[in-house]
Amino acid sequence: MKILVLGGCGFIGSHIMDRLLAAGQSLRVLDRAPERFRPPLAGVEYVFGDYSDNTILVEALADIDVVLHLVSATVPGTAALDPVGDVTKNLIPTIGLLENLRKLRIPRLVYLSSGGAVYGIPEQVPTPEDHAQRPTNSYGIVKAAIENYIRMYGANEDIATTIIRPSNPYGPRQGHMGIQGVVATFLNRLRQGETLQVWGDGSVVRDYIYITDLADLVVSSILSTQTGVYNAGSGIGTSINEVISTLEEVTGRKAEVDYRPVRTVDVPRSILDIGRAQMSLGWKPQTAFAEGVRLHWDWIMAEAGHK
Amino acid sequence: MKILVLGGCGFIGSHIMDRLLAAGQSLRVLDRAPERFRPPLAGVEYVFGDYSDNTILVEALADIDVVLHLVSATVPGTAALDPVGDVTKNLIPTIGLLENLRKLRIPRLVYLSSGGAVYGIPEQVPTPEDHAQRPTNSYGIVKAAIENYIRMYGANEDIATTIIRPSNPYGPRQGHMGIQGVVATFLNRLRQGETLQVWGDGSVVRDYIYITDLADLVVSSILSTQTGVYNAGSGIGTSINEVISTLEEVTGRKAEVDYRPVRTVDVPRSILDIGRAQMSLGWKPQTAFAEGVRLHWDWIMAEAGHK
Repeated sequence: MKILVLGGCGFIGSHIMDRLLAAGQSLRVLDRAPERFRPPLAGVEYVFGDYSDNTILVEALADIDVVLHLVSATVPGTAALDPVGDVTKNLIPTIGLLENLRKLRIPRLVYLSSGGAVYGIPEQVPTPEDHAQRPTNSYGIVKAAIENYIRMYGANEDIATTIIRPSNPYGPRQGHMGIQGVVATFLNRLRQGETLQVWGDGSVVRDYIYITDLADLVVSSILSTQTGVYNAGSGIGTSINEVISTLEEVTGRKAEVDYRPVRTVDVPRSILDIGRAQMSLGWKPQTAFAEGVRLHWDWIMAEAGHK
Repeated sequence: MKILVLGGCGFIGSHIMDRLLAAGQSLRVLDRAPERFRPPLAGVEYVFGDYSDNTILVEALADIDVVLHLVSATVPGTAALDPVGDVTKNLIPTIGLLENLRKLRIPRLVYLSSGGAVYGIPEQVPTPEDHAQRPTNSYGIVKAAIENYIRMYGANEDIATTIIRPSNPYGPRQGHMGIQGVVATFLNRLRQGETLQVWGDGSVVRDYIYITDLADLVVSSILSTQTGVYNAGSGIGTSINEVISTLEEVTGRKAEVDYRPVRTVDVPRSILDIGRAQMSLGWKPQTAFAEGVRLHWDWIMAEAGHK
């Protein structure tokens, strides 16, 4: 079995690559850029380019049995600023990928969607996979449309499809530009003695999943014959204020917090029901939040030491 | 109040124009082509062009209070053949329209979605508006994504938005190229003594709404302060075989039917729950199916006589 990982050099992709290599899989990566934090992995074929370039994509799909699609050209914040760009850079290339899977008869696709964005403001928390999808921002609207196209091609073209909906992953190799990933952003600001900015009163609740737990779930789903849709979270809700407390405990540093007026309508509480992945894939999250934050902090301090 | 009707020269648009004129509204139409079956309406401003052309759209939006968006560049059959075209010709221009409404502070949008496509295979029949959306074809996926963007701009930008989800409209001025509109297609084939083609055994159930009933609902929603989502159907299910029986009765002609194997996964039964429009808009359908078919047939025969 040969697996093509679209976005295999990214934060999430790099951890999935580790797990797939450990499981003895044959791997090819298509990414726009090499990994940022380590040299190329031995025994992996790297192709550099954009999967929206059809020539590059078709070449990368040669002899592939499973495609793992991890690429998103946007994060929620950038998608909101340019909804047309969100559609043209994410939805349209993914339809192009599906067309290629159909033409080349590639039988399996695993796609990384979003557990935080596709449900909108949930009526049920923790939220199960069959909850209605009423996304409230462009990022979620495009993810939901992509999921629908994947389901359509799956039904009509005999492609086995799996959709993973991660909550908020955090851990080593996550970027910390401040546009996504509150744990990474806050840990880096704490390291540099900077004030933490919180939109609202810090009561917003999210479900944080440690990156290797997410990677384990994705790899379990690739190696499983089970298809369908899986939430990938910790199943536990943590408020921003609780995140800050944990960060203070782990780092031993006192956080200066600047609470600012809420900028836009947001989802007040997002926690995923992870029962399906536990039942069907025999997976469960292994890393408590404080432990994950410790591992993340250790990595940040080690990286800072290298510079 | 000045209303811009995108697609005002089409089958559905032309009937809505009649009703809006009768209600004394000030009207501008933006359409790619003039009406096919009658001269331009007196007192209406016509602009010819494509609403995806931003220059044309911005000019057409000058001094407008309400936009009624009836344009679809695809029908379900053509959308399935070219999903990327479906996205680029429908979703992207509609986001462009929403961006212009935001920039120009136009406070009201009424959009014609689809009651047959956005729900997918319904778990509840008749299907109410808050039923989950699991569209199974590109046409429905794009309509659902457009609805999501309309809701998003409505929530964030203070645009009052109404979404109408029609079932299967039929009646005078409907095209009969055979790609959409089983009543129009079959009536025209009966007129010409041609065989009717049915995919499957004729048991598929749809909800047929006479065109002036749909136009009345749309006009009621424009003139109402109520916003939100409204199904627009008859609330009654009619199988293809029942359609054919009614057509035979009305026309006095015997149908030759060619039953063919089902080509693809289809929705077996689609009937809309129309309680919300009845309650909130004080609307109800006035035209029984046999009566609507009679009016449609009379128009077809009169048109044929003109040629």
